[in-house]
Parts: sequence; structure tokens; C-alpha cells
Amino acid sequence: MRVVVYGAGQLAQMMYLAGSPLGIEVQAVDVNNDSVVHPVSKTPLDTTLAQALESADALTVEFEHVPERLLDEAAKTGKLMPDIASILVGADRVREKKLLDSMQVPNCEHRIVTHPDQLADCVDALGDKLILKASRDGYDGYGQWRLTDKADLPKLTQAMSQLNLAEVPLVVEKMMAFDRELSLIGVRNKQGDIRTYPLAENLHHQGQLHVSVAPATQVDDELQRKAHDIFVKLAEGMDYVGVLAVELFQCGDTLLVNELAPRVHNSGHWTQSGAVTSQFENHLRAVCGLPLGDTSAIGPSAMVNIIGCSSFSRELLSIDGSHLHWYGKSVREKRKMGHINVTAKSYVELGEKLEQLGQFLPLSFFPKLVDEAQRLKA
Amino acid sequence: MRVVVYGAGQLAQMMYLAGSPLGIEVQAVDVNNDSVVHPVSKTPLDTTLAQALESADALTVEFEHVPERLLDEAAKTGKLMPDIASILVGADRVREKKLLDSMQVPNCEHRIVTHPDQLADCVDALGDKLILKASRDGYDGYGQWRLTDKADLPKLTQAMSQLNLAEVPLVVEKMMAFDRELSLIGVRNKQGDIRTYPLAENLHHQGQLHVSVAPATQVDDELQRKAHDIFVKLAEGMDYVGVLAVELFQCGDTLLVNELAPRVHNSGHWTQSGAVTSQFENHLRAVCGLPLGDTSAIGPSAMVNIIGCSSFSRELLSIDGSHLHWYGKSVREKRKMGHINVTAKSYVELGEKLEQLGQFLPLSFFPKLVDEAQRLKA
Repeated sequence: MRVVVYGAGQLAQMMYLAGSPLGIEVQAVDVNNDSVVHPVSKTPLDTTLAQALESADALTVEFEHVPERLLDEAAKTGKLMPDIASILVGADRVREKKLLDSMQVPNCEHRIVTHPDQLADCVDALGDKLILKASRDGYDGYGQWRLTDKADLPKLTQAMSQLNLAEVPLVVEKMMAFDRELSLIGVRNKQGDIRTYPLAENLHHQGQLHVSVAPATQVDDELQRKAHDIFVKLAEGMDYVGVLAVELFQCGDTLLVNELAPRVHNSGHWTQSGAVTSQFENHLRAVCGLPLGDTSAIGPSAMVNIIGCSSFSRELLSIDGSHLHWYGKSVREKRKMGHINVTAKSYVELGEKLEQLGQFLPLSFFPKLVDEAQRLKA
Repeated sequence: MRVVVYGAGQLAQMMYLAGSPLGIEVQAVDVNNDSVVHPVSKTPLDTTLAQALESADALTVEFEHVPERLLDEAAKTGKLMPDIASILVGADRVREKKLLDSMQVPNCEHRIVTHPDQLADCVDALGDKLILKASRDGYDGYGQWRLTDKADLPKLTQAMSQLNLAEVPLVVEKMMAFDRELSLIGVRNKQGDIRTYPLAENLHHQGQLHVSVAPATQVDDELQRKAHDIFVKLAEGMDYVGVLAVELFQCGDTLLVNELAPRVHNSGHWTQSGAVTSQFENHLRAVCGLPLGDTSAIGPSAMVNIIGCSSFSRELLSIDGSHLHWYGKSVREKRKMGHINVTAKSYVELGEKLEQLGQFLPLSFFPKLVDEAQRLKA
């Protein structure tokens, strides 16, 4: 079988590595030049995009910002999974919010803003602690702003008037006092079978995921069930095929959906060592119409992102249960270079191992590691 | 880092897949034409063998019958691991027996035969239940014969006189009434660190491995320790670097070494799902001078070889904890086409899963599966 992935980054690479044992050949599309490349070496393959689409059994994406002309072309083959509507939900916060609301899936209270003057209405409706998010990110990273004091409203309104909000609206959300950020990775195959992984707890810093712990601590059956039910509602409602990541805010017993990612997701990388079947294998199983693999956790595990640095001691591999995943990219500030998965028999042991890990890493690039190690050890 | 593997079969392929996350690029040498190929696709890479050897950090083998001119060339670089002497031990039963005897490692009672007339002496010394093994296999499979009745000695002597025993001697072994066949996979890195996996129990049929169960049932600490000590003696005595497989006969409390394989080994494929670190990753860590990974078993697991057949239901993936490893080769009688790893929480559950597995497979190609499932369930 053959699967073509739009995007030639680390997610396509890890799909290739997961597919190969199953006899699934994964090819990657470099969307910058429409070439078909080997997902690991990135060398061009001896095939045109049209030929690759023709010979593929399934087409999928590793990121949601695939140019729409490519998505349209892919959709026409009838082999694109998830479908184009699902991918666009991940690429456009307005679509996302409309979907969540239409399915009555709990999410943060919000307004859609297409003109700067509407910001004042938002303050009236949602209060003066707001997050403003551009509905579409593009490739250049975040377009996010915060209002924490009503006095700053004129200045913010002025700033927003520089943007073309009619073209790219804002989603304005009430800032939530949530307890923590969780994510649920789930998968639905062509046959409609669904399986979800245990919830992961995610630690962010400056908008980037740094550490995931899975299964998240202090999750009872009830909370896991709630997350599972949200996933089922979304995946069935969207007629979704593949892995879908659901980012959640936990507020007491309540789960609010923060964001959807219609693809394998960084907060699911722990499944490579920590679950019976990885998210990458399950995504491929799903789009190829194969039975889904067991999503159970093997034990407590953590995923630590390596961001913006390439210089660290490979002696970290001396920690039992540590596995390095290196993406082979040139280093840039804030760039995800790789990740380290760590498995353990208990959360305390996991904390001890993360503490050891810190001794092999330049800690300024790992701002969440030491505190999380201490928390788990306690 | 880059590792060049002599041999472009499934073992090189699985090394590639294990190396990629670590940032280790594995290239394979097709020893039939000295070309350097991609270990998965088998397409030629844009490099000569000489260039590949020059740019490699380590050279290793996926089988012991690499032409000696290639091994000599590899050894000259100083990067070949394990070294040439260790590889030749795996390729030549006379060398193997001499090594085992010189290190006082228990093995089957035997004689080296270089002339047919010596067979009569063997009967006098070892009895009339004998296995005769050509010291070198070559690519054409086994050269093995049996004597089970003294009356057949003249006929056997006559048959052996057709061979050039002076060139390729026989190792003649006393047929052992062993309880079962076990194997120990272990690894030693450049620094001299050693780790061994739990013993696996191996079920053969007509000279081919069909099923491994790991950790083997009914292994106490004492037996595991004995196997570990044998490994340490061998690996240190040979100054071995990489994964070394030790095939053993268990006779009561005694372990006899049957055979050594100086490489990753089929009886270690269970480590892909069943152990914290796979044999493939550990082999690469070893030859690259990285710290070794945890060799602990995660739980009971089995490896089922797919031999000589390519037609079976992919629905076998519906069994929780089942993972298919397909080598992508054209089907031939007796050819290893792939394997299935199955993990479980208990041996009883493992037996149940193997029983389910049987329902998806053409059982005539899996002669050991059903009985082993029943044994584990009991």
C-alpha cells in the first residue's frame, strides 16, 4: 500500500517509519515546489505529484496549512483523509468555532470579530480579560494578542485596525482560569471504528509545547470518558478518518475544547514508546482501512521537546527507557529539532528520570523540565 | 551518524527504521554487486561503496556469509563491528566450536571430521545418534545429515565421500536429548558495557525458526544468570561489539551453546514490541558508541514468522497488541516474508491472542502456532 502525505517534515518522517513495517510506503509532498520526496532523506523520488496521487491508496496531511489548490486536487481523487472540510477546520479558527458550536461541544466563550469597533462589544460581553487570535495562522507563526486591562482597549483597537479583519477575522475569547491543558489523541478508521488514547497533560511555554506526560496524572474514569465522548461526537460528526488531536482546557470537572488538529500531533508523540500502538501507525491503519491498534498506555511516560537547540549530550540515552527522536533539521530559534520519550514504571520513577535527563540538557532550552520532574517525584 | 550494513535484507531494513529516530542513517550494501542501496526501497544510493565506507562512522553486517574480500576491505577501515574474527565464527562451525572450547563454554559434544573414515571414530566416541553439519553453509541453505542407527553408517560414509571434507570439514555432534531451545540476545558497546535480554524460547520446524516466546516461560533467576554469564564470557573474550545471538539447548539446569550468530537475530525480533529497547536500536547504539538501552521485557510477547506465504488476512491487526512486520519480498518456498509480534499482559492472554491469530492465517504455513497457543493458555 502507498500513502502520500502533504508536507515533508518530521510528522511525515515518523509516518514513514511507522508505515514501513506494515508494508505501507509513505511518500511526502514538499508543498513549496510540489515535488514528491522521501520523507526521511527528503531526496526527490522518481515520480511526479500526479503519478504519486494516481498510485496512492490514500492521501493525507501532516499539517493543516496545505495550499488549498493542492487540497482541492487531492480531494478530487476521493482518497484524501481526513477530508478537506476537516483539514480546513484545523486551519481556520472561525470554522473551528462554528463547528464546535454547531455540535454543542463545550469550548471557550468567544466572539468573531471582523471590524476593530466590535472589540468594545467583546469587552461588554466577555469581560476585559481577552485573548485575540487571528483566524488563520499562515506559516509565519502566531497572530495572538491579549487584553488584560480595559484601559488598553483603545490601543489594541488601533493595532487591530492595521489588519484586514474582513479578510482574516479574529476569534476573541474570554481568558479562562483553567487548571491545566490536556489533549486527547483519537483515531477513527474508514470503517468508522474509533479508539482514543489516555489523556496527556501538556506544558507550554511561549505558545510552544515543551513537555507532555501521559497518561496525565489525576484523571479519573469519568474525565477520560468525557474526553472520549467529545472525541466521538466530533469524529462522527465530521465523518473524520485518521488521527485527530483535541486540545482541551480542564476547569474542575469541565473540559473545554481549545483547538483541533486534524492530524498526528506533537502531544501524541509519547505513544511511540508509551502506548501499545503509536499515533503514527494508527493514523496509517485508519486511512488504509486496516483495523485500529490498541491505544492503551504501557505505563507512565513523558515526551520532552527539543526546541531551538542541537547541542546536548547523547549520554542522555543512558537513562533506561529514554528514546531520542531526531528530525535531522538545521537549528533555528524556536524550531522543533526532535523529542525525547521517556518511559517508567511509576510517576515517581518518571520524575526521577526527567530529573536525570535535565543533567544532560542545556536547561535554558527546557524551561518546563525541572519543575515537572519535581512535581512527578512528589 | 552513518552506519553501513553489509547485506540488504530485512535485518538491514529494520536497522534503518531503528536508526532513523536516533539520527543514524543506515545504508545497505548489496553484496551481489557491491552497490550501496537504501535498506527499505533497495534503490541504489548516489554513492560508491568506497565513498560509503569513507563517510561511515561504523560498518556492520546483517549476515555472516559476506564475501571475505568485502570483509577484508571493511576491516581495513578499522570501523567494522563486530570484527572480522567474530563474523567468521558465525560463518564457520569449526571456528565456532574451537572458540567455545577455548573459552570453556559448554556446548554439545562433538568431533571435527575432515575425512569420511573418521565417522566410524565418531560413533565410537559419541554413540550412534549423531548430527553431521557442514562447517560452512554457503547461501544454499543447510548441509545437515543425521545418523540414528549404526547400520546406516556405511551408507552415510559413502555419501560424505562425495563431499570435499578437507576443504569444508564436518562438525559431528552427539544428538542431545534437550528439553527445549532458548536463545539469549545480548549486546556490548564500544565502551565495553554489556546488557542481555531475557531468554526467549524458540520453536523450530524443519530447521527454521517459527515462533519465539519471550521472556521464555519457566526461567528462574539462576538460569537467566547462567545465560548472562555465558554471554559475558563470550562477548568479552571476543572483544565483541554489537548484538550477538547465542542459541542454547536447555537440558535440565544446564545450558549448552548450540550456535552463535554475530548479528541481530530472528529470535530477537520480539524486542521490537516486547522490550524497552529493540535489538536493532541497541545494535546501532553499540557500534556507534552510544549508551545501551534498557533490555527489560515490557511483558510476555511472541514473535511468529511468516514463512513461504504472502496471502493472509490483514484483519489479524484487530488483535490488540499485534504488530505486522512485512519485509516486502516476493514469495518463495521457505522464505521469511515477515513476522508478527504480539504482546500481552499475561502468558494466558498471549496464548489466547495466538489462538486468535491462527484464525487469520493459513495454518499449514504455521505448524507451531496452535500448539504453542494451547500450551500458553494452559
